[in-house]
Amino acid sequence: MSDSPTLSRRAVLGGIGVAAVASAGGFAVGQRTADASSDSSKGEAQLAAAAIVPFHGEHQAGIATPVQDRLLFGAFDLMTDDRQALVSLLRTWTSSAEALTQGKPVGTDDTTPEAPPDDTGEATGLSPARLTLTFGFGPTIFTIGGRDRFGLADRRPAALVDLPAFAGDDLDPGRSGGDLAVQVCADDPQVAFHALRNLTRQAKGTAVLRWSEMGFGRTSTTTSGSSATPRNLQGFKDGTNNLRGDDTADMAKFVWAGAGDGSDWMAGGSYMVTRRIRMFLETWDRSTLSDQEGTIGRQKLSGAPLGATAEHDTVDLAARDAKGALVVPADAHIRLASHSTNDGIRILRRGYSFTDGVNPVTGQLDGGLFFIAYQRDPRTGFIPLQRRLAEHDALNEYIQHTGSAVFACPPGVRPGGWIGEGLF
Amino acid sequence: MSDSPTLSRRAVLGGIGVAAVASAGGFAVGQRTADASSDSSKGEAQLAAAAIVPFHGEHQAGIATPVQDRLLFGAFDLMTDDRQALVSLLRTWTSSAEALTQGKPVGTDDTTPEAPPDDTGEATGLSPARLTLTFGFGPTIFTIGGRDRFGLADRRPAALVDLPAFAGDDLDPGRSGGDLAVQVCADDPQVAFHALRNLTRQAKGTAVLRWSEMGFGRTSTTTSGSSATPRNLQGFKDGTNNLRGDDTADMAKFVWAGAGDGSDWMAGGSYMVTRRIRMFLETWDRSTLSDQEGTIGRQKLSGAPLGATAEHDTVDLAARDAKGALVVPADAHIRLASHSTNDGIRILRRGYSFTDGVNPVTGQLDGGLFFIAYQRDPRTGFIPLQRRLAEHDALNEYIQHTGSAVFACPPGVRPGGWIGEGLF
Repeated sequence: MSDSPTLSRRAVLGGIGVAAVASAGGFAVGQRTADASSDSSKGEAQLAAAAIVPFHGEHQAGIATPVQDRLLFGAFDLMTDDRQALVSLLRTWTSSAEALTQGKPVGTDDTTPEAPPDDTGEATGLSPARLTLTFGFGPTIFTIGGRDRFGLADRRPAALVDLPAFAGDDLDPGRSGGDLAVQVCADDPQVAFHALRNLTRQAKGTAVLRWSEMGFGRTSTTTSGSSATPRNLQGFKDGTNNLRGDDTADMAKFVWAGAGDGSDWMAGGSYMVTRRIRMFLETWDRSTLSDQEGTIGRQKLSGAPLGATAEHDTVDLAARDAKGALVVPADAHIRLASHSTNDGIRILRRGYSFTDGVNPVTGQLDGGLFFIAYQRDPRTGFIPLQRRLAEHDALNEYIQHTGSAVFACPPGVRPGGWIGEGLF
Repeated sequence: MSDSPTLSRRAVLGGIGVAAVASAGGFAVGQRTADASSDSSKGEAQLAAAAIVPFHGEHQAGIATPVQDRLLFGAFDLMTDDRQALVSLLRTWTSSAEALTQGKPVGTDDTTPEAPPDDTGEATGLSPARLTLTFGFGPTIFTIGGRDRFGLADRRPAALVDLPAFAGDDLDPGRSGGDLAVQVCADDPQVAFHALRNLTRQAKGTAVLRWSEMGFGRTSTTTSGSSATPRNLQGFKDGTNNLRGDDTADMAKFVWAGAGDGSDWMAGGSYMVTRRIRMFLETWDRSTLSDQEGTIGRQKLSGAPLGATAEHDTVDLAARDAKGALVVPADAHIRLASHSTNDGIRILRRGYSFTDGVNPVTGQLDGGLFFIAYQRDPRTGFIPLQRRLAEHDALNEYIQHTGSAVFACPPGVRPGGWIGEGLF
């Protein structure tokens, strides 16, 4: 059932789980769990072998973490204005995330015959599968219809702006927005499903799922030196020039909110933008290789920039062919998205391919890219970038944005703490 | 991107791909491909290492094959009554299946700038991921509305009956039936998506997708001695007493159509029933552990039959407790589904968990089981079994069948042959 990792939840329960060692960019912590009898001297290597990504740290896991294979994203609407109910939910979710990321069940009781089990059980026996749970707060948690529902309005970060309308948007409100977000990533989709399902159960009475999206294939590389850049459903390598989660200087500059950025409670956090991008695959598939490569600005097979020979060759946006035409066309995606043409703007992409099943009009498989990007400030990150792309990108002929959301993802949780506590 | 296998398509193209060695129950064949320069002495071990399941054989792959982790199922409607167009499609699909299962692109040309590439490209660089493509013919390929559309009416196997209505069915026609079926299984969902997408493109003008279903987690074990029985979304181990694909005697008796069964062209084939079974997960999750275990007839954690101690212990359906009550309740799923209470009926299950995303009524994640079963004859396989379950199974409180289809899956293809050629 599980994908690559071989260590089962049972093995994890028996052997590891009491040591949480910080991932890159985090800090070392020692965490006690119910498994007090276990050896607490396990280090980072053993956690990796057990496919555990530590939940605790300076930053939330699931941002700088090397991208897992699968995604299940959930956005929630709060059904209450009771601040204590919200805090209680965040505390419960924190506790569950601590357990789930270690491959343990949620709750404490799965064995009382006359009670419903706390955990739904479908991940029992599976590897932790590098599960990460990354939580975010939408603008509507601060004010909704002008109303300060939780007494948090004055805590809203200036960077958490409502996204403006972009040219070509065709947004479905039922696939956009949300008060709370949970980005669930794992190498095994059943582990991801189990995690979001149980968080959703625990939210009952306080929050309900507004929308969800399953991503079956990652489209970004976020680690230096990783072997291969994955391909998106257009068949092109995606993310060649992405930021790298292990580049701490770039992450500090472009991704992590700083202490001086205006909202202290967000220091060490990041702002997440999600865009559900439908691809007109049938149209794309009927376009010529030359058109496809000119649209993207790269060769399809190698991933090399047009005019170059290898994927990671420098993009020469000034190059012209013998006839004087730009080698990378003026409206090519990589030209318009390049940080060299965008005042140095860089964002960390972490998207996944999705499918909607059958397109009833064409009778072909429908699908696209569930785009996720993290940045220090959307006002200087996604927004100016997307404004330019939406106006000029040749790719717009083949795609449409059908869902949109923005969330403030608070910093990581220290042992004993809870998600977002700095906000309250 | 890929799950467990590490050999990429490029490595496969360079090293293997010219030898196809039969899987269990098949026969040894030697196949020439465009890669004539490659070493043709590779054997079964190398194919396994390359994550290749041979396409050619006595039986179609994807039935006895050890269950892969992921599913993408497609059912097609034919848009033509032209028999030659249908034959041409089957020949094209055969050729594509030969390439895809070896990790190669479909078609021959992905490099002409002024033409659309034959292959969509999103699986380039990925492992073959044990891809199998299993093809089937629905009843409507023989007659539709009483009309013999392809001149095949007198070739319809007696065993390919229309499934009767069962108690509790709530079937969506848009998720049921179909003229042609392709069961795509692979350990990497992107490899499965790529395969079905390209077959669908190649069908353009002849057939369109009627429905599809993505399965994110297998729920059956079909191999003797495999390490762990997977769990379904109810959290229970599923498939403990399933038939084993490597048990040739049982497969011959229960799964493979025989030469004397009435339709010669189906000898070595099998009949596939699919049922999309929605689970009322929220109701299930609120029921007590005792209710859940009594409904299934097994312990949730261990998978042991009630009254026993280990998963593979013999089920004692006659056992009674101190008060004289049946230990395995009269309406427990395993009692009603057991071959010992069904005249020895056995079917090979090959189901997958699916999710529909958010249930708009409950605000919880929706999902269920995409049930696939293979048998020698549905009239003595799925139909009597399901009739009994639909009437009496305690599980009916928690599930509903929302899609249904039946297909005749012809025998395997020999080199140079094509899928279903015996029918035409």
